[in-house]
Amino acid sequence: MASTNPTTPPHAATEPPTKYSAPPHEHKVSSFGPIIDVALRVILFATALVAVIVMVTSKQTKLIPVAPGIAIPRDAKFNHSPAFIYFVAALSVACLYSIVTGALSVLALKKPGGSSTKLQLHFVILDALLLGIVAAATGAAGGVAYIGLKGNSHVRWNKICHTYNSFCFHFATSILLSLISSITLLFLVWLSVYVLSKKIARR
Amino acid sequence: MASTNPTTPPHAATEPPTKYSAPPHEHKVSSFGPIIDVALRVILFATALVAVIVMVTSKQTKLIPVAPGIAIPRDAKFNHSPAFIYFVAALSVACLYSIVTGALSVLALKKPGGSSTKLQLHFVILDALLLGIVAAATGAAGGVAYIGLKGNSHVRWNKICHTYNSFCFHFATSILLSLISSITLLFLVWLSVYVLSKKIARR
Repeated sequence: MASTNPTTPPHAATEPPTKYSAPPHEHKVSSFGPIIDVALRVILFATALVAVIVMVTSKQTKLIPVAPGIAIPRDAKFNHSPAFIYFVAALSVACLYSIVTGALSVLALKKPGGSSTKLQLHFVILDALLLGIVAAATGAAGGVAYIGLKGNSHVRWNKICHTYNSFCFHFATSILLSLISSITLLFLVWLSVYVLSKKIARR
Repeated sequence: MASTNPTTPPHAATEPPTKYSAPPHEHKVSSFGPIIDVALRVILFATALVAVIVMVTSKQTKLIPVAPGIAIPRDAKFNHSPAFIYFVAALSVACLYSIVTGALSVLALKKPGGSSTKLQLHFVILDALLLGIVAAATGAAGGVAYIGLKGNSHVRWNKICHTYNSFCFHFATSILLSLISSITLLFLVWLSVYVLSKKIARR
């Protein structure tokens, strides 16, 4: 037992809090959060970047018969629909955001004191905003892509995925990746809130 | 080392401050947050409920000419598109959620100690989840409704809002209301994080 050790000076436990060094279990908790934070931001960066690239490179040209014996080439491109333009814009913003905040997280990780509460607060505010933007983009692209896949007989919107199969495969991949981005942003919000609540419980 | 202080068990830091009574200035800060919280939940309830009602009551029947002299009645209903079914489901969940959490917030407001950190933590986790769901629903409905409004000449999806004008007016109102719901949920997340960070700064 440490209390029976005569070499320990009696004033050691009453030192001012300025020289306070975190006990091992506290240090573990505070270094645990930022590593997951950085990992989630790397996942966000990767999924958002690949989603944008896959969406932008989805152009497909097919010969569409307009009359017997006559076929004209018609493109299918992502920028034919405003929903997909918004999707690319939102995912690009998420990608840039993940670079900036990922770099700040790595810098905070290197600092001996760990990440500050103020930085974490700014992160969670922006993470929640981005979550809303990316989730809306995923929804918009998903809603339009579903019509492309299944059509809508009630309003006579014909399906296009049986013609433009590679185009639709690109879209499905891209929307799936943006769904992962949204879930990653949700986890980032949850992680920040968890770390903040741990800080309250510890004090 | 944790063993240097034998009177404090290691799990004591995670216990709620049961006998803690807030000084006057702290009480002012802690009663400020829950009132806005309740107000935002009331706004969420109202917008989500009205959005669902407006969407569900959007049915419109028109006589559509199919041949010269022949016209058949055709309905336009929200459940013709999966995006709108998802929209109604998501907004209904948000509406029910706002009732439950609003009631809990009012109960927490009446308690003398104010809302507990644990309750706030659960709220912000669920608020962020709902934010993602409602934002995705708004995006999906918005993306499909935009095609209804403007059409898409590239894939020959004709616009329908010049025919079903009352139907489209219902949709536009409903999507606008769900956008307000999403923004309210974002504010709820921000408010909870702000209150949590205030608690850290105070201790």
